[in-house]
Amino acid sequence: GNDTSATAAAARQSILTKPLGSLGRLEEIAIWLARWQGRAIPRLDRVHVLVFAGSHGVTAQGVSAFPAEVTAQMVQNFARGGAAINQLARQTGAKLVVKSLEIEKPTADFTQAPAMTADELLEAVNAGINSVQDEADLVCLGEMGIGNTTAAAALAAALFGGTARDWVGRGTGVDDAGFSRKVEVVDRALAHHAKALADPLEALRRVGGRELAAMFGAALASRKRRIPLMLDGFVCTAAAAVLARLAQGGLAHAMTGHVSAEAGHRKLVDCLGQRPLLDLGMRLGEASGACLAVDILRGAIACHSGMATFTEAGIAEG
Amino acid sequence: GNDTSATAAAARQSILTKPLGSLGRLEEIAIWLARWQGRAIPRLDRVHVLVFAGSHGVTAQGVSAFPAEVTAQMVQNFARGGAAINQLARQTGAKLVVKSLEIEKPTADFTQAPAMTADELLEAVNAGINSVQDEADLVCLGEMGIGNTTAAAALAAALFGGTARDWVGRGTGVDDAGFSRKVEVVDRALAHHAKALADPLEALRRVGGRELAAMFGAALASRKRRIPLMLDGFVCTAAAAVLARLAQGGLAHAMTGHVSAEAGHRKLVDCLGQRPLLDLGMRLGEASGACLAVDILRGAIACHSGMATFTEAGIAEG
Repeated sequence: GNDTSATAAAARQSILTKPLGSLGRLEEIAIWLARWQGRAIPRLDRVHVLVFAGSHGVTAQGVSAFPAEVTAQMVQNFARGGAAINQLARQTGAKLVVKSLEIEKPTADFTQAPAMTADELLEAVNAGINSVQDEADLVCLGEMGIGNTTAAAALAAALFGGTARDWVGRGTGVDDAGFSRKVEVVDRALAHHAKALADPLEALRRVGGRELAAMFGAALASRKRRIPLMLDGFVCTAAAAVLARLAQGGLAHAMTGHVSAEAGHRKLVDCLGQRPLLDLGMRLGEASGACLAVDILRGAIACHSGMATFTEAGIAEG
Repeated sequence: GNDTSATAAAARQSILTKPLGSLGRLEEIAIWLARWQGRAIPRLDRVHVLVFAGSHGVTAQGVSAFPAEVTAQMVQNFARGGAAINQLARQTGAKLVVKSLEIEKPTADFTQAPAMTADELLEAVNAGINSVQDEADLVCLGEMGIGNTTAAAALAAALFGGTARDWVGRGTGVDDAGFSRKVEVVDRALAHHAKALADPLEALRRVGGRELAAMFGAALASRKRRIPLMLDGFVCTAAAAVLARLAQGGLAHAMTGHVSAEAGHRKLVDCLGQRPLLDLGMRLGEASGACLAVDILRGAIACHSGMATFTEAGIAEG
């Protein structure tokens, strides 16, 4: 990040007509955006919402409330403008890009084999990298993929330890029997791949999925290009966490838009030292929480750029 | 509220292309707006942000970090468009109306006398009532008034019990000595008016202030006219709480936009059974937190009105 821009933004916050600190995290947001955009007065003219879709062989184990074909049906829904993220992106003036990652070809069932080959992993990571455009003022990340909270739970356990019980949630709303299967499936996967999970990228290959790999790639690319990044819920954060485990400060350019109702997300953001901006009980994915948080950023920038200073307004300071 | 509209909105939420409940509080918001607008598909075309300003005699006791003349200076700043609320209202497309309530004439120092006469109370309440326009789809309430967190703390104690320590915070950022004075001042006021505080309106008259009375009036008028109401921080919520204490369900039409960093606010919203939408460490007043939460409502309405149903999209239900 750019210290000079961040310092200038902080200095500006201290002379605006409000008690210092009284805008709370709106001040922090303005300074964070300044740091990663390299602009004392940041802008959000081009917000890119990247949603990656993938299919998961592990759905054969009966881990989801929805059938696997819903992934393709939802990709169609995105294309036609009918999903939540279409509405939220339009509402906040963001550009939505949906990338479908070979959804007709599910990953391998990772209870029995690595989810992806090395080539498949690389291809998905590259798809993520190539989705990040230099012109973006902010990138929001999200996903769609029936079965992917199972993959995210396994990946989170691989990255931060613990067993399935620590990370598995209800996903789209699996019933008690399905939840028990999901826990058992994740523990079985962790046992199967136990010797290979210490390497974050290898964990991503073995128990992740194409859309998780792509989100990791997009997180990496935005870090390299110093574009601020907004994370979404459990699956997105688990994918981005690979970057944090690979490099100290790997997610310094990222904020988390919301804390999901999916069980493992709160623990995951705590592991990463992330403080989500919103807590609205959402658990949809699709970058919906990240995109909704963009409005908070817009409010922060509106105040940062538009408010009068004490001197300009002729107001006594405290 | 309108049960028919709320039921229709809830039915619509259950057929939109997402797992039921996965939009969390966005679903609750859509149904709440439907109930109070009497429309199955609510709208936010006309959002009115009402900010009331008043002056407080109790500032003579040295309870604030800022001099009393800042109230008038900030009213000027509102008029010129330089304050935080100007930016936030413009950002979310809301109409900002600032009403200055005889700010050249402070209330009486309520450690020694009632803050207002009965006539003064009524005039301020009426100013609030008359600020609510039938055309509004949503009313956001807020305030400006150096010294008014002292009044709000005294009022909260009068309405919900406890001593100054339970309700007094740092306001705009008073130092330790000022904080001690503030606590002592509130306890002194509570003792002085002890026999008269059981009646919520009388408590408002004795330890409130004009902008608090006006916010109470606006909360009442929006309840009568079934216009959904968005509350802001500590001072706003304390004023609106008078309505909740006067009548069961008096604030059924209200949500709280955010929980303020001002110490007493979290306890106050708990007393009212309100669950604030945002928690961003803000403590500015001016309806800033209420106005920022409007963007969350816009997201909720965008999803509610714009998403495809399962049938429309040809998607398998879970």
